[in-house]
Amino acid sequence: MAENEKKAVEEITSMDDDFAKWYTDIVKKAELAEYTSVKGCMVIRPYGYAIWENIQHILDTRFKETGHENVCMPMFIPESLLQKEKDHVEGFAPEVAWVTHGGDEKLEDRLCVRPTSETLFCEHYANVVHSYRDLPKLYNQWVSVVRWEKTTRPFLRTREFLWQEGHTIHATAEEAIAETERMLNVYADFCEDSLAMPVLKGRKTDSDKFAGAEATYAIEALMHDGKSLQAGTSHYFGDGFAKAFEILYTNKDNQKVYPYQTSWGVTTRLIGAIIMTHGDDRGLVLPPAVAPVQVMIIPVAQHKPGVLDMAEQLRARLSGKYRVKLDASDNSPGWKFSEYEMKGVPLRIEIGPRDIEAGKCVIVTRHNCEKEVVELENLEEAVERKLREVHDGMYEKALRNREKHTYSCLTVDEIKSALENNGDGFVKAMWCGDESCEDKVKELTGVGSRCIPFEQEQLGDKCVCCGKPAKCMVVWGKAY
Amino acid sequence: MAENEKKAVEEITSMDDDFAKWYTDIVKKAELAEYTSVKGCMVIRPYGYAIWENIQHILDTRFKETGHENVCMPMFIPESLLQKEKDHVEGFAPEVAWVTHGGDEKLEDRLCVRPTSETLFCEHYANVVHSYRDLPKLYNQWVSVVRWEKTTRPFLRTREFLWQEGHTIHATAEEAIAETERMLNVYADFCEDSLAMPVLKGRKTDSDKFAGAEATYAIEALMHDGKSLQAGTSHYFGDGFAKAFEILYTNKDNQKVYPYQTSWGVTTRLIGAIIMTHGDDRGLVLPPAVAPVQVMIIPVAQHKPGVLDMAEQLRARLSGKYRVKLDASDNSPGWKFSEYEMKGVPLRIEIGPRDIEAGKCVIVTRHNCEKEVVELENLEEAVERKLREVHDGMYEKALRNREKHTYSCLTVDEIKSALENNGDGFVKAMWCGDESCEDKVKELTGVGSRCIPFEQEQLGDKCVCCGKPAKCMVVWGKAY
Repeated sequence: MAENEKKAVEEITSMDDDFAKWYTDIVKKAELAEYTSVKGCMVIRPYGYAIWENIQHILDTRFKETGHENVCMPMFIPESLLQKEKDHVEGFAPEVAWVTHGGDEKLEDRLCVRPTSETLFCEHYANVVHSYRDLPKLYNQWVSVVRWEKTTRPFLRTREFLWQEGHTIHATAEEAIAETERMLNVYADFCEDSLAMPVLKGRKTDSDKFAGAEATYAIEALMHDGKSLQAGTSHYFGDGFAKAFEILYTNKDNQKVYPYQTSWGVTTRLIGAIIMTHGDDRGLVLPPAVAPVQVMIIPVAQHKPGVLDMAEQLRARLSGKYRVKLDASDNSPGWKFSEYEMKGVPLRIEIGPRDIEAGKCVIVTRHNCEKEVVELENLEEAVERKLREVHDGMYEKALRNREKHTYSCLTVDEIKSALENNGDGFVKAMWCGDESCEDKVKELTGVGSRCIPFEQEQLGDKCVCCGKPAKCMVVWGKAY
Repeated sequence: MAENEKKAVEEITSMDDDFAKWYTDIVKKAELAEYTSVKGCMVIRPYGYAIWENIQHILDTRFKETGHENVCMPMFIPESLLQKEKDHVEGFAPEVAWVTHGGDEKLEDRLCVRPTSETLFCEHYANVVHSYRDLPKLYNQWVSVVRWEKTTRPFLRTREFLWQEGHTIHATAEEAIAETERMLNVYADFCEDSLAMPVLKGRKTDSDKFAGAEATYAIEALMHDGKSLQAGTSHYFGDGFAKAFEILYTNKDNQKVYPYQTSWGVTTRLIGAIIMTHGDDRGLVLPPAVAPVQVMIIPVAQHKPGVLDMAEQLRARLSGKYRVKLDASDNSPGWKFSEYEMKGVPLRIEIGPRDIEAGKCVIVTRHNCEKEVVELENLEEAVERKLREVHDGMYEKALRNREKHTYSCLTVDEIKSALENNGDGFVKAMWCGDESCEDKVKELTGVGSRCIPFEQEQLGDKCVCCGKPAKCMVVWGKAY
């Protein structure tokens, strides 16, 4: 390696040795985020933020295509407003940050920094929704929220995190329920089509519902260590918030009635999900759709005549259609290979004097480290094909991992032995619907209910815990 | 008007009767923003937020073209961190919101909600800048900030507002100064090319500098009521923050030295500037580049066969290239005309049975309410041309207004009589450089120094106030 190299690509902890340390190594060394002096608050660095911008762009386009508009609510909620919906305040009050002073002046009604914005949207809807002609309102905002968590980890659980929160209000329950489901599907499609991450869609059990919701739907993804990560949620509120906030509209029959509401969100946690679904011992592996750099061109023997020129030509041919960069710095090719493997760039193109002579270049796909020699004249076609291959390969690999770690169990003992023999994963087992059984399964096996999947299977007709008649199949797991 | 119309388009206060009321009428009735129960915090509604999204998109593209990357810093600053730079904390501490509790727990070091993020960027730079190879860092973030203002008005002065803040760090003072100027020019070009708003570029006097800056540059625009609005600022920090935060890097000669910094920002205040530069007694007038809807198609006699079909055909032809909408609701054409005039849509296309028969349509430009009959076959060309005309016409009108209300004065008495006879505006007058003269001009005439324009004129060689030798020409005015 050249003496003047900026830094050595540092080794990261192996995921099998210490998964948690492997995770934070990647966060730091791929330059996604950095700690600050405020516990649980992070700096999202340019490379990490560019992933979030790509996520935002894709989702925002989908939201607008489905008729949603962006707005911006204040970040502060007066304590009196937060208290209007009983379940909601009980769920959130213990974990909010309180503003008590503005300048030197003590506030009469202290303000919490929004942990979520249902109360603010409700206050606004009460102001602007009067007639059936004002419905539906399909609103979304991209903001940060604050929850005063005790245990924090970059992206996965931070005291401040970035998210979008959709908040909609409808004339009928049916329309609101359809919206709740529509947005869960938007999230699921996004995870699979853009993040190459298979997800289960399902309903949360009552013990796991959002504070104030009638029903919470979620998408759950299995991480490489066998733990489950809730990647997005969509809530149906019925008319509970409307009643608490006195939102009333005049329907077509000239009666004053309550409307129905939903909310739904995904967060910067998705970046944690990408790391733990696709990463390996060389570092990050990014899905092409959200990678800040999709193709990195690395010249070999770049001091030889013509090499840098050709590398720049390739860059120019690909730019416009792809996010492509050329690293012409004086670091060695070997250092560059390691660096962009660490950073998870989906494709790397190697071009040296012998390649140029042969009219070829080498394309290496990050997710499986395979090389292919490609004719330079077919470069565009090859890059397009390889990026598709990378996405599909990443999705298949994640799906195989999930299948390998999904266990169908009929008894609590089967759950225990499946986990012991095969490691953590998703457990499919029938449930009677009683919260006491849910608690007992968790106590005995360590796995809690993740969701009641929409795609049900009939694994016998008895509850895995009490043996009484089962109501549904639940997917159980350990959660992030 | 049809009985079933959603609402009448309400009258707004005339700007000559009560400019402040005219302003808030537009904010509410054009559905840009709505008040909340937290004083000084507003809901930015879809129509207002869409303007901000267009501003963001244009500026963000310009920032990226000039090599900047987006990041995201926390919203909280520990009190101890805020205190590291003396001038900075003195400037901001009196107007910050303080978080004292997380959940039930009292915080040891209370946190302020960022009023601006220099301290956070400095803490981060101290962590990641070590070598000349790490420089420059050209960072920006799009976030909201909080300043506990006593008097508030939507968009112009709110306790929470949206903005972007660029923060850059450089090896040399020259490079940092060039950056400060470059970004001021980006802002000025944006205001003129995208907002059709002429601006003065200049330097702030020392009394008006940003807390902690060596020099503050600003762009100033003249509003319709003759008051000045600071539309963007760019600060050069020298190495003051680097010293306070112990940011040191190893230069090429292997010495540890301090780097140089800048910051620069524009805010949602720009939406207030658009209202007060271009608006009239019919409502908002939006520059085409940032208008959420650039073209509104309004069918006339839409119950007649073929009218809605043709209106939809026109919409389809224009969509993709323009932000175009068709209002096929059952409100009357007259109501629609008023509504979209209120909302400032740059072009309206009227299409009815007789137009269709003649193969024509009518295009009305909002800023001057002029009509033109256009051949349907030339629609795309006509819309392109009219949008350019609208932008240029708006810019010219605003420039003429500024010229009409810019007064060159040699004495304090001349300032007084210019303002009395011609109304508020920009006053050009020479200044000796003493803060006491600056204060005295303000006391005697009501106008304060807005900036020392880059384009200097020689209006004699004596200070307008004390008569001693003048150092420069200052532009004075009343400020928002």
